[in-house]
Amino acid sequence: MDLLGVLHFDQLAHGLANLSMFPYFDMAHYIVSVMALREQPGVLQVSRVSPLACWFSSMLFCFGGAVLSGIMLAEPPVAPLSNSTSVLLASVIWYLVFYCPMDLVYGYASLLPLRLVLSGMKEVTRTWKVLGGVTQAHSKYKDGLLVMIAIGWARGAGGGLISNFEQLVRGVWKPETNELLKMSYPTKITLIGAVLFALQQTHYLPLQKHHLMFVYTVFIVVNKSRMMLTGSSTSPFATIESALYKTLFTGYSPYAALTSEVKSACIDSGAINKTTSSAATTTKESSETGQPGQPGQQAPISPVEGQRGSLEAKEESQNAATTDCKKTN
Amino acid sequence: MDLLGVLHFDQLAHGLANLSMFPYFDMAHYIVSVMALREQPGVLQVSRVSPLACWFSSMLFCFGGAVLSGIMLAEPPVAPLSNSTSVLLASVIWYLVFYCPMDLVYGYASLLPLRLVLSGMKEVTRTWKVLGGVTQAHSKYKDGLLVMIAIGWARGAGGGLISNFEQLVRGVWKPETNELLKMSYPTKITLIGAVLFALQQTHYLPLQKHHLMFVYTVFIVVNKSRMMLTGSSTSPFATIESALYKTLFTGYSPYAALTSEVKSACIDSGAINKTTSSAATTTKESSETGQPGQPGQQAPISPVEGQRGSLEAKEESQNAATTDCKKTN
Amino acid sequence: MDLLGVLHFDQLAHGLANLSMFPYFDMAHYIVSVMALREQPGVLQVSRVSPLACWFSSMLFCFGGAVLSGIMLAEPPVAPLSNSTSVLLASVIWYLVFYCPMDLVYGYASLLPLRLVLSGMKEVTRTWKVLGGVTQAHSKYKDGLLVMIAIGWARGAGGGLISNFEQLVRGVWKPETNELLKMSYPTKITLIGAVLFALQQTHYLPLQKHHLMFVYTVFIVVNKSRMMLTGSSTSPFATIESALYKTLFTGYSPYAALTSEVKSACIDSGAINKTTSSAATTTKESSETGQPGQPGQQAPISPVEGQRGSLEAKEESQNAATTDCKKTN
Repeated sequence: MDLLGVLHFDQLAHGLANLSMFPYFDMAHYIVSVMALREQPGVLQVSRVSPLACWFSSMLFCFGGAVLSGIMLAEPPVAPLSNSTSVLLASVIWYLVFYCPMDLVYGYASLLPLRLVLSGMKEVTRTWKVLGGVTQAHSKYKDGLLVMIAIGWARGAGGGLISNFEQLVRGVWKPETNELLKMSYPTKITLIGAVLFALQQTHYLPLQKHHLMFVYTVFIVVNKSRMMLTGSSTSPFATIESALYKTLFTGYSPYAALTSEVKSACIDSGAINKTTSSAATTTKESSETGQPGQPGQQAPISPVEGQRGSLEAKEESQNAATTDCKKTN
Repeated sequence: MDLLGVLHFDQLAHGLANLSMFPYFDMAHYIVSVMALREQPGVLQVSRVSPLACWFSSMLFCFGGAVLSGIMLAEPPVAPLSNSTSVLLASVIWYLVFYCPMDLVYGYASLLPLRLVLSGMKEVTRTWKVLGGVTQAHSKYKDGLLVMIAIGWARGAGGGLISNFEQLVRGVWKPETNELLKMSYPTKITLIGAVLFALQQTHYLPLQKHHLMFVYTVFIVVNKSRMMLTGSSTSPFATIESALYKTLFTGYSPYAALTSEVKSACIDSGAINKTTSSAATTTKESSETGQPGQPGQQAPISPVEGQRGSLEAKEESQNAATTDCKKTN
Repeated sequence: MDLLGVLHFDQLAHGLANLSMFPYFDMAHYIVSVMALREQPGVLQVSRVSPLACWFSSMLFCFGGAVLSGIMLAEPPVAPLSNSTSVLLASVIWYLVFYCPMDLVYGYASLLPLRLVLSGMKEVTRTWKVLGGVTQAHSKYKDGLLVMIAIGWARGAGGGLISNFEQLVRGVWKPETNELLKMSYPTKITLIGAVLFALQQTHYLPLQKHHLMFVYTVFIVVNKSRMMLTGSSTSPFATIESALYKTLFTGYSPYAALTSEVKSACIDSGAINKTTSSAATTTKESSETGQPGQPGQQAPISPVEGQRGSLEAKEESQNAATTDCKKTN
């Protein structure tokens, strides 16, 4: 019976590895990507004001990985545009999600069961994209394990990694956030996938490719479904990450005690800075509400501001002895 | 007589197609481009503080199209620098426009008749650049109609499309504006040209190349002259655009009613956000002017702020059900 | 004896030219670069919150030149990652500088004598990098003197030139500063080196390569040591620069008188704009401190603000006649 199970597993894995992504899985990827774009704040306004910017943003959501890995390997970043069928498909989906009469497409695709299926199918394409990136890098850099990981990661999580520039297309600029500073779950899982496939490609991981594909695909699909159904956003690696972090990155003592404080301060200040205009608006409002003729009332300094201030002071004192940071470049 | 007219047209078209851009038309392009840079707010200050940044910005204005299309096709973006004659010519013009004693060059070139001629000649180079881009893309991607359009557009309107990064060279950052969000007339006309030349190249448009070149060149030169003489900035396609927009992009009803409101709000908020510092200054001033001891006086909320607020509220309520936009990436 | 001196010089130059950068000089370069990163404001916080962003920033400090020159020549910017040994070495140094228990590595490397030696060795690698860039460009563009200078400069001073984007990785965005607007000493000296080596390569400079390498290396090492020991940051070319600037870039009279005023205003406004959040904070504080019930007290307008205002007014009046700057693109 054990042998039977192994045989079944092998057959299943082969079956999955021979699956064609085009057209159904690609379509699911486009639908979920364009819907994710539509759910970003401010995008509906942009879709009315400038359909072209909205279309370009959608294409970056759909083909961001190919564009980014193209740039990294000095291959034309316009190459995805040369695949007319894919672009046409993605454009039709973009149009339907944003401009369909009665908003039918978005309405139906948002229903939980359908969205669950589509998201699952999108996750399947992730395996193919990561593997594609690793293989492409392998063909150029035989021994470049790091290059393979980088390209596999870029191909699989491109949309997230270039989000700063994708937002810029829509007139949004949030320099204080990026996927390297605070990785989201898809970026993390793609990085892990890229590492695994790169290790498999260089034979450090004693597994057959289609077996790894099967295991990785099942894991990301199941995990994604679990997260969507329970609504939790806790990563399954939280404990491992935390242990690794504590072991590796808390060596230097004087500052380490501050770490948790810093984390909360960063999140807070991120919330403050969201956008320039909103920050300015907040300021205005606060000065307005603080004003109405209560003489002698000192506006209280918020705890966050105070914390940030003290941290900055600490750091400044640390940097005082080393002012010529620019000159040492 | 009709036959005679056709013969004449064909001869004229052939004559134009054999015209050499170097040196006179290229020179006109450089002069008009550098003057356009000089007329950007803040550039004169930059030209005094850092001639190098000013020179680099000028080169991006002159060769931006070549740089952008180079990046898009994974060809060296420094390639324009290898054409020493062109760079030298552009540099001399940059120097004369910015630093000529008595400001003679800029003064004379600004005179309407001369500027009209120069702008007309610059428009002629646009045809050559768009065609060059389309041909270059065609040699790499035989059937890539979209690639041809993209490269032709990038080559012809490169300076405008990379304006965010050109501004960054000068220390200016305006993320809320870009040519995709709000296309200017040259960007629009170049896009149309790129589409036409790409269709001609792939034989979807039953026209001979030199005929199309002639018609397109005459159209953009005449139109540019008209716009400069009448001072109007209305695009000749405004009605077509508006009709297309209404047909295609207003399908989804609940938000459509807001469109015009959104547009004005966007323009207003653009005006507010212009630069961070000015926004902060405004805030300061408003709080200062609102202060001088009128107890109980509530500073009025500006209509724009109110409108923006209500729009944001609307959007937030729309996004409330779909908070996990990041996770779906 | 003169002959003896020449012989000695030639031998020394040959000896230097045959020096291998790997591993000791490269190591010094990595240590000094990572320490320079660590001394940037806010980096210690980032190193706790996101080790990955910190690592990526460090790699950009160490390999920024190779990445930038790769992009400029359309060669894969990931190529430095394929050199596993270098990346591993740089990563170990990054780890030790940031996370070493007791902060031993940073503590010792900061001691002046050791830092002096390391900085001297780092300067030696600059010669090799500039020369490498010039040679690489020469192999692609035989007569492209400008391309050679650009690539040599990018390779030698890459970390500085891409600092805007390196900062973005860490969530910092300072558009108002860049190395073109205000060149730092290393960027300047690298540019001079790139010009010299490009002239030597094209035989305009009648010097042998190893002689030039020797002279340039000695000059930058001595000069760097002098600057570190005296703590002065005055460039040795200040007088030449100033003379050149006065001769070349002050032709246009009406604005020239403003130059010094502009310079100070720019520096001031730079100080004001540092970061959005700090600007907003300042505003808040000023409105708070201005408030506590002193009716009739008009908050004084700061001289800087006033100056900026008047400058803007001047410029606006200048631009009034030329409003269609966008259209002329």
